[in-house]
Amino acid sequence: MKILLVGAGGHVGGVAKAELESRGHDVISASRSTDPGVDTSDPASIATLLKSVGSVDAIVVAVGAAAFKPLTELTREDFSEAFVSKTMGQIEFVTQGIEHLNDGGSITVTTGVLSREPVPTASAAAMANGAVESFVISAAPELPRGIRLNAVSPNVLKNSPHFHDAFAGMVPVTDEQVGAAFVRSVEGNVSGRVIAV
Amino acid sequence: MKILLVGAGGHVGGVAKAELESRGHDVISASRSTDPGVDTSDPASIATLLKSVGSVDAIVVAVGAAAFKPLTELTREDFSEAFVSKTMGQIEFVTQGIEHLNDGGSITVTTGVLSREPVPTASAAAMANGAVESFVISAAPELPRGIRLNAVSPNVLKNSPHFHDAFAGMVPVTDEQVGAAFVRSVEGNVSGRVIAV
Repeated sequence: MKILLVGAGGHVGGVAKAELESRGHDVISASRSTDPGVDTSDPASIATLLKSVGSVDAIVVAVGAAAFKPLTELTREDFSEAFVSKTMGQIEFVTQGIEHLNDGGSITVTTGVLSREPVPTASAAAMANGAVESFVISAAPELPRGIRLNAVSPNVLKNSPHFHDAFAGMVPVTDEQVGAAFVRSVEGNVSGRVIAV
Repeated sequence: MKILLVGAGGHVGGVAKAELESRGHDVISASRSTDPGVDTSDPASIATLLKSVGSVDAIVVAVGAAAFKPLTELTREDFSEAFVSKTMGQIEFVTQGIEHLNDGGSITVTTGVLSREPVPTASAAAMANGAVESFVISAAPELPRGIRLNAVSPNVLKNSPHFHDAFAGMVPVTDEQVGAAFVRSVEGNVSGRVIAV
């Protein structure tokens, strides 16, 4: 398959890229620093990227940032920025991506355990993840031409040291487990699923 | 208890108000048209309302609008407006409400079945509801002084005729069931829950 993968610079995106390439797929990687590059907070930039890449069989997106702060320190700006970055940055690849996908193609977005389990300082990220997951559930049945849509939603990552202290008692997941979830979304037949890892 | 209830003009807010009043609570109702009124898309307006009401034992919020359109017709503006109205319009009552709540008080926000079940044309509303629910799960454990936080998340409403056609095969819930969920959130001891009705 020809796959557009956005966000390979992050740990999860990098794992998805490596796993999909190891299975023989042609993965076109895009990020802020590639050519063509993409600023996922700017819908025009996403449009330009999609046009330049042409038709694909799958779009995989693993992008979005959010501020981690105690609830009482999170500002309206923090929530808005998480929404623009993590939520809209991924939704745009769905609404704009449809016309660039071949029949029976798929879109995979990335969320995380924060949508379903509380972790200190994570309320803005949780909000943005929950938004994406409910969007996936609702939007998938409306996609045309057999196009599928899923979210891969990993727990804290064993091979990425960030935030491990905040996830006390949660069992980190391996790159192999995360990669498998992307394979299931891209090569499998599920749609409208939050694939929890 | 002294309870600030925002959004009694809507069906769900009206049901919550009637049920809480029937149980002897002092319910102060606020909406766009009350005095003091509130524009929930404007954080300054929420601040003014909270200040004018003074300390309360519970805040109940049932506000927020979203455009219902086929996925391919939903615009970035539709998603952004749903986020500002339904998501931030309720999150502000949590982040700003804390200092106006008595010890052991509670905040109850309102979402709906769209966060977990697909319904045609509902992707923007689903997104906004999912955002609120994951926020509730994440934010509740961080609240000080025993303050609790829950979301009441009803299925389609038996006594409100809107959108029934879109909810084909889903069993409408009664006002009694919806009212009970608000009572559980306000008078019970649960926190960080999405109370599905």
